[in-house]
Amino acid sequence: MDVSHIEHIGIAVKNLDKAIEYYQEILGLKCYAIEEVKDQKVKTAFFMVGQTKIELLESTDPEGPIGKFIEKKGEGIHHLAFSVKGLQGALSEIESKGVTLIDKQPRKGAEGLNIAFLHPKSTNGVLTELCEKP
Amino acid sequence: MDVSHIEHIGIAVKNLDKAIEYYQEILGLKCYAIEEVKDQKVKTAFFMVGQTKIELLESTDPEGPIGKFIEKKGEGIHHLAFSVKGLQGALSEIESKGVTLIDKQPRKGAEGLNIAFLHPKSTNGVLTELCEKP
Repeated sequence: MDVSHIEHIGIAVKNLDKAIEYYQEILGLKCYAIEEVKDQKVKTAFFMVGQTKIELLESTDPEGPIGKFIEKKGEGIHHLAFSVKGLQGALSEIESKGVTLIDKQPRKGAEGLNIAFLHPKSTNGVLTELCEKP
Repeated sequence: MDVSHIEHIGIAVKNLDKAIEYYQEILGLKCYAIEEVKDQKVKTAFFMVGQTKIELLESTDPEGPIGKFIEKKGEGIHHLAFSVKGLQGALSEIESKGVTLIDKQPRKGAEGLNIAFLHPKSTNGVLTELCEKP
């Protein structure tokens, strides 16, 4: 697999406005976009740090994936996303090596990227996303 | 605060050899160093991905911070480390803004960096480290 960099780090937060204030006022980062991803039941805020984005995720529904994550584990880092070249080929390659895929085919994620998630049981507990610009 | 990039992402794993195999064989990254940090009771393995390191952490003692983390939350992402310029000044600045610091003064971390941790209660649940090259 050809991984170039960490595309983003997804962080589950209870209150998006309060979290944005922390990343802006304390860490000095700039929120450049806020986007609702309806099928994931989240509202997201993005910050750029070098090559990598911080993606804050507030659930819009307690039954959504982020709502359930926070109920179970509390606020914190939710997933890690790598930028890859040739996403479909990468998925086929790692599935043949025994990795359990959540998404066998790429689908559309935030910011129009093609994305796919790997199952944490195959990744030492880290919910892992692979991304590629269309 | 002047944050340039994400210096590393710390990931707690139960079995360092098994996790190294995943990052090498599945994600195609190269482990460039293995280091024991005795005062943190961990054995670490490092991978470079673009600007950012993946730091795998296996506890050498169930009573160490990583051993306790895995017991409580399971394997997964443990902390997020930002590279900053002027670490001591950054700590003073954010403490004056009400952030609770775990380390009020920089101390030595892995790879000889000067590091300090912020308390997750001030950072929306993300154990956050600031790093600076000496």
